[in-house]
Amino acid sequence: MRSTPEPSLLPSEYAFSHHIRVRFSETDAMGIVHHSRYLPYLEETRVEYLRFIGQSYADSRESLGDSAVLEANVKYRQPLKFDDLLTVHLILAATTGATFTINYLITANDNIISTAYTQHAYINAQGRPQRLPAWIKELAAQ
Amino acid sequence: MRSTPEPSLLPSEYAFSHHIRVRFSETDAMGIVHHSRYLPYLEETRVEYLRFIGQSYADSRESLGDSAVLEANVKYRQPLKFDDLLTVHLILAATTGATFTINYLITANDNIISTAYTQHAYINAQGRPQRLPAWIKELAAQ
Amino acid sequence: MRSTPEPSLLPSEYAFSHHIRVRFSETDAMGIVHHSRYLPYLEETRVEYLRFIGQSYADSRESLGDSAVLEANVKYRQPLKFDDLLTVHLILAATTGATFTINYLITANDNIISTAYTQHAYINAQGRPQRLPAWIKELAAQ
Amino acid sequence: MRSTPEPSLLPSEYAFSHHIRVRFSETDAMGIVHHSRYLPYLEETRVEYLRFIGQSYADSRESLGDSAVLEANVKYRQPLKFDDLLTVHLILAATTGATFTINYLITANDNIISTAYTQHAYINAQGRPQRLPAWIKELAAQ
Repeated sequence: MRSTPEPSLLPSEYAFSHHIRVRFSETDAMGIVHHSRYLPYLEETRVEYLRFIGQSYADSRESLGDSAVLEANVKYRQPLKFDDLLTVHLILAATTGATFTINYLITANDNIISTAYTQHAYINAQGRPQRLPAWIKELAAQ
Repeated sequence: MRSTPEPSLLPSEYAFSHHIRVRFSETDAMGIVHHSRYLPYLEETRVEYLRFIGQSYADSRESLGDSAVLEANVKYRQPLKFDDLLTVHLILAATTGATFTINYLITANDNIISTAYTQHAYINAQGRPQRLPAWIKELAAQ
Repeated sequence: MRSTPEPSLLPSEYAFSHHIRVRFSETDAMGIVHHSRYLPYLEETRVEYLRFIGQSYADSRESLGDSAVLEANVKYRQPLKFDDLLTVHLILAATTGATFTINYLITANDNIISTAYTQHAYINAQGRPQRLPAWIKELAAQ
Repeated sequence: MRSTPEPSLLPSEYAFSHHIRVRFSETDAMGIVHHSRYLPYLEETRVEYLRFIGQSYADSRESLGDSAVLEANVKYRQPLKFDDLLTVHLILAATTGATFTINYLITANDNIISTAYTQHAYINAQGRPQRLPAWIKELAAQ
């Protein structure tokens, strides 16, 4: 059973937000953003969140190991179109000994576009799972 | 609560399979296939499945309307690397009045790489949901 | 023979510049940005240039027809890496009766990364080439 | 001055060909394959060509070093659409001491879709250019 809280529909319940402009190359022949393109939006937002809290992803890769994606889930409520300015809201939603889960809400033009979550493992340079660093635990406890 | 069966780990429990060779352009700086690249693999397999059962996707777009992605979920168990030959196994797992869910298993070199599901709505040319055509209902009942 | 001027290596010889942060999803297993990913950077910069001069691409698609890409050329001098902040410099380099050519210079961290050009046709809603609108001709004459 | 021969419009003048089915995720909101998506088609064909001549790309990366892309040029003559089955024709067109150039012709449904060329450097594990291996020189002399 999934004990992680469901992604909220309220922007105010997220810890961080990041703006992204939809590229033409991200649209598909239905005239909307292809559903696979949401995952790079989430990843870009994770990177900016790490920069915001003072842990650049580039730094963390060198000092702490990589974060491997264990699971990704996206619910698509309204489509995104070319040139839309979207906002990705993010919060560290849960942790276990070696994994953490991030929840997301995507909005654009005051519409709820999507909710999503990704679960990650913390691994060292040899690809082995390792205990989460303290700063992730602390963030999740806030 | 999700009443759709979980994606099985047994290839024999799927209705269709399709082979895809990993492109170099699908890898990332971790040396593995980027997690966003799995969704186009699933979509390519859906298209080949429709061709296999005699409903080409191009035909169905013209005659029956588009299929919109409502949700996508991927669990990543083992990484894929450049030039791997992967197999995507697919089965129509569940239907409701206006939606259907497909389960997937990705294998490569006799390893279980990933399980996934996607949920879709059937919409007409105006983007309105419509009842599933009979042939989808019949497939799901098999 | 190509009468269009070669893309200059001097940022000061360009009319517009736009910053883009490299996404992790744009890297490949060599640890650098995949060469196909430069073309969306150029396209994003064209869109921002049109916005800058007061012709948003969305508007121009509706009122004036689409711009089809006839040719794209990229020279790769230095690689780009994850999280690099690149600058794309752009200038409208030449026009003919129905086509226009844009030159680009990509820089990052004070290094010359790439030069490029793209040639475009102006087409109407039926996909037929049409005469360039006056504002493009005027821009090219500056 | 470019001494490499222009890509021919005749399939019979190429050494190798490879078939690729257009994915829905490769289309854009104009309803055609996005122009950036041609470069992965060319790369996939290079990899299959190396496999065909007995040098798998994976092998060559380990034993001989990587091949870096120096330049890519694509001319777009007719659009590609979703589900098109395209053929990429390839020939090793020219070599210098440390670089080689490949010409391409893309056809689909008996139409000429595109011509292209890519120029590559041969580099070792430290990223330094090195002399082309003899087998590339021999291929180009055929």
